[in-house]
Amino acid sequence: MIFSLIIAKDDMTKKPSLFTCLTPEIVHLYDFSSKISVVTDILRASSTIVTALAYGASEIMPFANESDCKIKRNENFIIAGERNGVTIPEFEMGNSPFEYMSDKITGKKIALTTTNGTQAIEKSKGADEILIGALLNLKSTAQYLVTQNKDVIVVCAGWKGHFCLEDTLFAGALAEELIHLGFDIDEDSTLAALELWKNSKENLNKLMEKSSHFKRLNKLNIHEDAKHCLTKDLYKIVAGIRKNTIIVLN
Amino acid sequence: MIFSLIIAKDDMTKKPSLFTCLTPEIVHLYDFSSKISVVTDILRASSTIVTALAYGASEIMPFANESDCKIKRNENFIIAGERNGVTIPEFEMGNSPFEYMSDKITGKKIALTTTNGTQAIEKSKGADEILIGALLNLKSTAQYLVTQNKDVIVVCAGWKGHFCLEDTLFAGALAEELIHLGFDIDEDSTLAALELWKNSKENLNKLMEKSSHFKRLNKLNIHEDAKHCLTKDLYKIVAGIRKNTIIVLN
Repeated sequence: MIFSLIIAKDDMTKKPSLFTCLTPEIVHLYDFSSKISVVTDILRASSTIVTALAYGASEIMPFANESDCKIKRNENFIIAGERNGVTIPEFEMGNSPFEYMSDKITGKKIALTTTNGTQAIEKSKGADEILIGALLNLKSTAQYLVTQNKDVIVVCAGWKGHFCLEDTLFAGALAEELIHLGFDIDEDSTLAALELWKNSKENLNKLMEKSSHFKRLNKLNIHEDAKHCLTKDLYKIVAGIRKNTIIVLN
Repeated sequence: MIFSLIIAKDDMTKKPSLFTCLTPEIVHLYDFSSKISVVTDILRASSTIVTALAYGASEIMPFANESDCKIKRNENFIIAGERNGVTIPEFEMGNSPFEYMSDKITGKKIALTTTNGTQAIEKSKGADEILIGALLNLKSTAQYLVTQNKDVIVVCAGWKGHFCLEDTLFAGALAEELIHLGFDIDEDSTLAALELWKNSKENLNKLMEKSSHFKRLNKLNIHEDAKHCLTKDLYKIVAGIRKNTIIVLN
């Protein structure tokens, strides 16, 4: 009886933890059961999704491949997506958040496929719940996670399996918010992400200019996209997946 | 003719690059051909190997599994190894560098198996050459790499596939040395490792005390091991693999 009381007390006092899966290539190392997955692809899928929802898109259905995405045109979806940063031929929209800052998407359903982001969502399917996280809705996402009181795994979309700086910086930013709200950090990848964020948050561009993704985006002349995607707390929405589609949760 | 001259000039001026494979789980993303792999397992395999060589061990043969390692006892090897930080039963030595600071290993051959380090060596076998890197022989390793003028991949041993802070800090420290010596950094993982190193090198312990590996080692009461393993440039040797065994190269 005493023993069971001690266990109950221990369960009650255990803080939730934040884990950071640095690339989708190592998701198999994580146990997603009873946890919330926060998928992030800062440049640009998750930032674009959050922007589109903030501008009134009713839902965004993610697809790992082009052909499945394209079929949704027949069901009144806007079809959208990129490969290697460029809009897919015959698709109506690409992956720039600025394309979605428009009345024409208000109330519309969007089918979206991207190079890395949608694959990261596919790989998170063992989780209790999947959110889409961006710096654009950082604080709202953190506040929602606290209400759920579950362990959280940030899944960084990366670039073709490789580690990406901007996704890791998001994980660090989320760690900073969640520590203030009572979460534990007991994994090195989260600790490293937090250190990177704390040491660069006052001048994100200085570090990001050296990153491989910035160099790729620079070649595509989309400086403004990157600037937008690195802005914190522009939108007060939480983006989550319900029945395979991304909607605003609050 | 003009075209071929331009290519030749470009080849001549191309600087070698440093890549950082953050865990052995993602080695398949890297092309090791024509490159040098630097395997690191700061706590403690690579630090212990470098210490043993500095104290005169004639060679150290790495093994991924216990039984292959144990057989070498019949060939006059000292058999050594740990699992989960603890010396394997019936083995003569464990994985603490202090065990190897002794005359008794001078001129001796050692067969070594460890939890993560030897597996990382196995996975690097596509490289032109494999070195064993530690903070203990950082500068000597960097100077050797410059003489080879090849791209370099640091393979962080990690912990059971997971990212480890101390191995990444070594990658950052090596990046700092190699940039001064003319290498290029064009990968986010190396950039992140360099940032982590630059921001914590003046007080490594402050960051490392929060790391998961430090907490594990603390449970085993091996603070002194960790302090030794985080010391820079104590030994002026280069550790490399020749015919499946680790020897001093210079």
